[in-house]
Amino acid sequence: MKLASLKSGRDGELVIVSRDLSRAAKVPHIAPTLQAALDDWDRLESRLQDVYDALNAGTAEGAFTLALEDLAAPLPRAYQYLDGACYVCHIRRNREARGDTLPDDILDAPLIYQGISHGYGAWNDPIVQNPADMIDFEAEIAAITGDVPRGVSADEAPRYIRLFCLLQDTSLRRIVAPELKRTFGFLTSKPESFLGPLAVTPDELGDLWDGKMVSGTMKVTLRGKQIGNIETGIDSPFHYGQAIAHVAKTRNFPAGTIIGLGTVSNEAADTDWSIGAGCIGEYRAMETIQTGSAKLAFMQPGDRVRIELFDREGKSVMGAIDQEVTWPA
Amino acid sequence: MKLASLKSGRDGELVIVSRDLSRAAKVPHIAPTLQAALDDWDRLESRLQDVYDALNAGTAEGAFTLALEDLAAPLPRAYQYLDGACYVCHIRRNREARGDTLPDDILDAPLIYQGISHGYGAWNDPIVQNPADMIDFEAEIAAITGDVPRGVSADEAPRYIRLFCLLQDTSLRRIVAPELKRTFGFLTSKPESFLGPLAVTPDELGDLWDGKMVSGTMKVTLRGKQIGNIETGIDSPFHYGQAIAHVAKTRNFPAGTIIGLGTVSNEAADTDWSIGAGCIGEYRAMETIQTGSAKLAFMQPGDRVRIELFDREGKSVMGAIDQEVTWPA
Repeated sequence: MKLASLKSGRDGELVIVSRDLSRAAKVPHIAPTLQAALDDWDRLESRLQDVYDALNAGTAEGAFTLALEDLAAPLPRAYQYLDGACYVCHIRRNREARGDTLPDDILDAPLIYQGISHGYGAWNDPIVQNPADMIDFEAEIAAITGDVPRGVSADEAPRYIRLFCLLQDTSLRRIVAPELKRTFGFLTSKPESFLGPLAVTPDELGDLWDGKMVSGTMKVTLRGKQIGNIETGIDSPFHYGQAIAHVAKTRNFPAGTIIGLGTVSNEAADTDWSIGAGCIGEYRAMETIQTGSAKLAFMQPGDRVRIELFDREGKSVMGAIDQEVTWPA
Repeated sequence: MKLASLKSGRDGELVIVSRDLSRAAKVPHIAPTLQAALDDWDRLESRLQDVYDALNAGTAEGAFTLALEDLAAPLPRAYQYLDGACYVCHIRRNREARGDTLPDDILDAPLIYQGISHGYGAWNDPIVQNPADMIDFEAEIAAITGDVPRGVSADEAPRYIRLFCLLQDTSLRRIVAPELKRTFGFLTSKPESFLGPLAVTPDELGDLWDGKMVSGTMKVTLRGKQIGNIETGIDSPFHYGQAIAHVAKTRNFPAGTIIGLGTVSNEAADTDWSIGAGCIGEYRAMETIQTGSAKLAFMQPGDRVRIELFDREGKSVMGAIDQEVTWPA
């Protein structure tokens, strides 16, 4: 099943989207918003699925031609955002470039922070930040969960995943290092993130979802040039179930929690330059390690980034994120 | 105006509470939940105020006798929680006890983290945690904001504060230090927090609210013995406006953001033992600094903590938090 939210009010208006993205149907009689659907998923899922089946069969009542430009983030505001740094080579390269090594306990538990959940931008919204802050993007795949019970095991946790979507976690690199030095985590260095246009159920991914990781090839294009071509199903020592279980040790999750494993990254990029990176910062770290200096510029007003996941046949899996940087007002 | 939420569903049911806390009235015709009221505050505030005035005059339709036990947290789930460590002596003592000094940049900007916002417990809910994790509480006053525009100045920011309430930020001290060492901030060491029973508008505080800080005396009682007797209006180099403006440098806030200045703490407690502390950790730090060893035990199942703010006449300002620790299931 593919779900999305039309731009409308603070929470958007839930629509079911046909498999080929051509048509959509509103479902106010089932759930007005995606949050409402997630709050009552077990009772509503089959009714939403019926609409999806009808859309794909061309028989859905009230179906209309979908314009992706009308979409907000699937969850424009959420109650919890957790983001990891689980693709460890992302962290390794960033630290290596500045002469650091990985922390000793990096493999003891997934490294995850509590992020800003209240204002996800749409897939094509501008990134409105000051270039003096060194604007970077991060290409990620996020899971959206239902209610997760505290103490859930890593094996059981994936069954609470309701949806997956693309996520772009904007990062202001000038502020990251001094903020992390204060030990309280990211704050002003991680402003609002952006979600891909579509949220898809795990079954929609077919064998790209193995119950632990989402496979596929994440292509990242910056200023019209591909800088990332990354396999997403490998190189994270922690899968979604382990990430969820780690945080759920001391808390329940509310329905609509968004949890990412962090910037996708491949070990093989050390020797295969065509793989690249899922953010500018790591790409610059690779340049520094291999050539002694970083060349890829951070984003400037007018620069665009495109992030899209492709399956084994080269088909787009869950839409694209495609954004331009603009100056703050 | 005093507002609260009856236990009901995920978001509670908004009620207006009389000044003396004896009576309450539901307001489904105005706003079903506190979040809904905050989402549309400018339009709804005067209608809510009319109900408050009628309650105090004894003329409110449908008013009923309020049982505090029926109250959930005023905002049972919120879209953003920000918590500071603005009462700097709290940090200074904790670090001094372990031989550390304050970070050089402690006065450059308020130290604030992104916290867990999705599951605030009620004022009298049990603290369900494992005592092996060294269970502590933190006594705080939180502001609940309306929509705050990005880039707001510290002078302008306080006008976006809609409400204040007590906050108890449960902390698992065994996990705090190793988690902060990883630089991504608090995660499993800060599980759900708890809010006082009532949220009050700034005008309700009279001259306790000077537009920057909330004054009063926070009394903290642990296991029946008072361990904190703290003036809340002093000893924070950063006021609410500065805390809000700092975070809002790179983001808007959504209505219903909860922001605390951190555990209340007084400089004078260094020489006046009767002032004590707003959490066990700092109290133990003071014991360590003054006597060489910490004696006050962390919370065990069956232990109670009570947190309450009093005005100059010794009257309770916004209800009390009163909780018992219980074992996890």
